[in-house]
Amino acid sequence: MELYFSPLACSLATRIALYESDQPARFTRVDLSTKKTEDGGDYLAINPLGQVPVLETDEGDVLYENGAILQYVAERQPDAELVPRDGRARTRLQQWLSFLGSEIHKVVFAPLVDATSNDGARDYARSKIPSRFSRLAQHLGDREFLLDGFTVADAYLTTMLNWTALTGPDLGDWPALKAYHQRQLARPGLGRAVSEERALYFAEAKRS
Amino acid sequence: MELYFSPLACSLATRIALYESDQPARFTRVDLSTKKTEDGGDYLAINPLGQVPVLETDEGDVLYENGAILQYVAERQPDAELVPRDGRARTRLQQWLSFLGSEIHKVVFAPLVDATSNDGARDYARSKIPSRFSRLAQHLGDREFLLDGFTVADAYLTTMLNWTALTGPDLGDWPALKAYHQRQLARPGLGRAVSEERALYFAEAKRS
Repeated sequence: MELYFSPLACSLATRIALYESDQPARFTRVDLSTKKTEDGGDYLAINPLGQVPVLETDEGDVLYENGAILQYVAERQPDAELVPRDGRARTRLQQWLSFLGSEIHKVVFAPLVDATSNDGARDYARSKIPSRFSRLAQHLGDREFLLDGFTVADAYLTTMLNWTALTGPDLGDWPALKAYHQRQLARPGLGRAVSEERALYFAEAKRS
Repeated sequence: MELYFSPLACSLATRIALYESDQPARFTRVDLSTKKTEDGGDYLAINPLGQVPVLETDEGDVLYENGAILQYVAERQPDAELVPRDGRARTRLQQWLSFLGSEIHKVVFAPLVDATSNDGARDYARSKIPSRFSRLAQHLGDREFLLDGFTVADAYLTTMLNWTALTGPDLGDWPALKAYHQRQLARPGLGRAVSEERALYFAEAKRS
């Protein structure tokens, strides 16, 4: 497998899933501003929308979209149980992946991190934070995970909660969410993925 | 099963999936402005975000999110093949459901149909239309469906293409997308679902 990623972008969720399930992969870095891969290749030829992640499978399938890629990676290593085996729990996983990909990623964060956004779009995104974050906090309470055990949905949510350090809001306003975030970062596989990408991110920031 | 819906909202995709797979359900209408169900119930007690669809299963599970509800409904009636049985095709379905739920629904349409939006957010949403609609048109070409046969992803996309009549853009700018939309509307199950909700929508518009 080959994962196209950008440090600390949402593609980090797939790196977490790979580490948490002990699956090897090749990681190819993408410069999201120039849309070039680290070897100078044209990333738009791989993904016309220029977004990460893209996962190229060993069978040569080119997959887009966090929700699909995360489930694919998890299903390749069922023993790691990053997706639940039970049908009802699987439906719940799909519900959370869908909620995270739409209401949290695209409604809240996308306009806040996109340089082509504008003040109105950012205000609108911020107006959606209280209801969405409260929904998450209310569900989590003192649950350890979104479902009964650690799943790819936790990999995705943790990846986005990292962004609040740059974009706001202050997670202190949702203690259940802040505690959840800290607990996830303490996981060895997840923590290693975050540290590695953080190092890449700050090395790049220092250079430019 | 009980589907909470609002006429022509994204919950229409689930009605389409139910009709296309000949599954009975109870349909309960929600007034999205007052957040009341048709019998005067408090819809926020069912879904704190006040969005449709919600599907209550026969086992009493309350499901949110189009992506999860559509897969759940499709899997209850495997013979209708509204989700592909093959694993690789299933991953592709999840990719398209994720793309539709995030890039088309939440990035493009949500700010255009939400009364609490603002001009900046609407401009930002419109700026995303060419790349997203071209991606769809380029994939569709003269394909009949997003995948090899009709799936719940087509139910979802058709539901949103209906909205362009009110929000723009002109589908004539993407002939492959316009032709696809017309072909889907000609399907008996899908067409019946659209006609019924259109009648409910205009009866309500006339009353108010």
